[in-house]
Amino acid sequence: SYPSSLSETMEGYEYDFVPPPEPRYECPICLLILREPRQTKCGHRFCRDCILRALRDSSARCPVDNEGLTEADLFPDNFAKREILNFDIRCPNNKDGCEKILPLGKLQLHLGECPLALTPCPNKCASIVPRRDMADHVENHCDLRAISCANCCANVKATDMLDHMNVCPKAH
Amino acid sequence: SYPSSLSETMEGYEYDFVPPPEPRYECPICLLILREPRQTKCGHRFCRDCILRALRDSSARCPVDNEGLTEADLFPDNFAKREILNFDIRCPNNKDGCEKILPLGKLQLHLGECPLALTPCPNKCASIVPRRDMADHVENHCDLRAISCANCCANVKATDMLDHMNVCPKAH
Ligand SMILES: [Zn+2]
Ligand SMILES: [Zn+2]
Ligand SMILES: [Zn+2]
Ligand SMILES: [Zn+2]
Ligand SMILES: [Zn+2]
Ligand SMILES: [Zn+2]
Ligand SMILES: [Zn+2]
Ligand SMILES: [Zn+2]
Ligand SMILES: [Zn+2]
Ligand SMILES: [Zn+2]
Repeated sequence: SYPSSLSETMEGYEYDFVPPPEPRYECPICLLILREPRQTKCGHRFCRDCILRALRDSSARCPVDNEGLTEADLFPDNFAKREILNFDIRCPNNKDGCEKILPLGKLQLHLGECPLALTPCPNKCASIVPRRDMADHVENHCDLRAISCANCCANVKATDMLDHMNVCPKAH
Repeated sequence: SYPSSLSETMEGYEYDFVPPPEPRYECPICLLILREPRQTKCGHRFCRDCILRALRDSSARCPVDNEGLTEADLFPDNFAKREILNFDIRCPNNKDGCEKILPLGKLQLHLGECPLALTPCPNKCASIVPRRDMADHVENHCDLRAISCANCCANVKATDMLDHMNVCPKAH
């Protein structure tokens, strides 16, 4: 589900909303901003996963007013969902320096290009580097970057260069 | 339905809301404040009667985004309904001098005691009088009020007094 598909149930959004939404957008169970809001016949709203868990774990009742409630009575409150996806948030990489403020619904897109987003090295060297530092990493630091041997000009992975020294035809 | 059960379909509320609600509480069909809000799967809200009429008269589509829509897909948005019933309005008898500002949900109660509300005369004289003037009407103006004959002290309806004069035992 959104934005990262964690397996365990997803509570509400914890992003830094700017400005903070009114209390009516908070889930009474997790107290966070509604993620995939579901509404009941008795007119209460919860995150989908929060109310599904509550119905399974505790009782088939609305946590707010104890009205009888089953999963079938829930319906997606897409009006509220659209509003929430339009609320502005600070990019979660704000702590690493990303100043971007954008609608929640655009976060996924932004994370695909956020300069501060941690990204795996394309050489698959297992390093995870902020996107803006990737070029430098691949160029100068990546173990799997190819460098040419000073002696024989062969292209050798940085991490293999020491071994290559032992076998380099031009080294001795 | 509410507050007065007119037979024809009921559009949204036209009261003088104080302050005026945000546009998100307006019905896209009647442009008034949602009465008995119904929400669609595509996340749009309408007054119950407005969307039911639209589905019957025109097409089985959402008036906002043309998504396929049938009556069965609609669900009551009681969260929004509760919010709207909590919005303050000026008493509709404001034009006659009632200064009261109260939650929409309390209107019915207030109209039962609003001093400016037009009320039928309890003597059923067919007069309709602002409640605050009723005592005076019943006392001094109502055709069917009982007054005692100056001569014989009999209790006679005001409207019958002239006739009584002809028959009053003490009049001649
Ligand atoms: Zn929640
Ligand atoms: Zn409830
Ligand atoms: Zn960012
Ligand atoms: Zn690397
Ligand atoms: Zn070499
Ligand atoms: Zn309407
Ligand atoms: Zn729609
Ligand atoms: Zn009034
Ligand atoms: Zn009367
Ligand atoms: Zn008399």
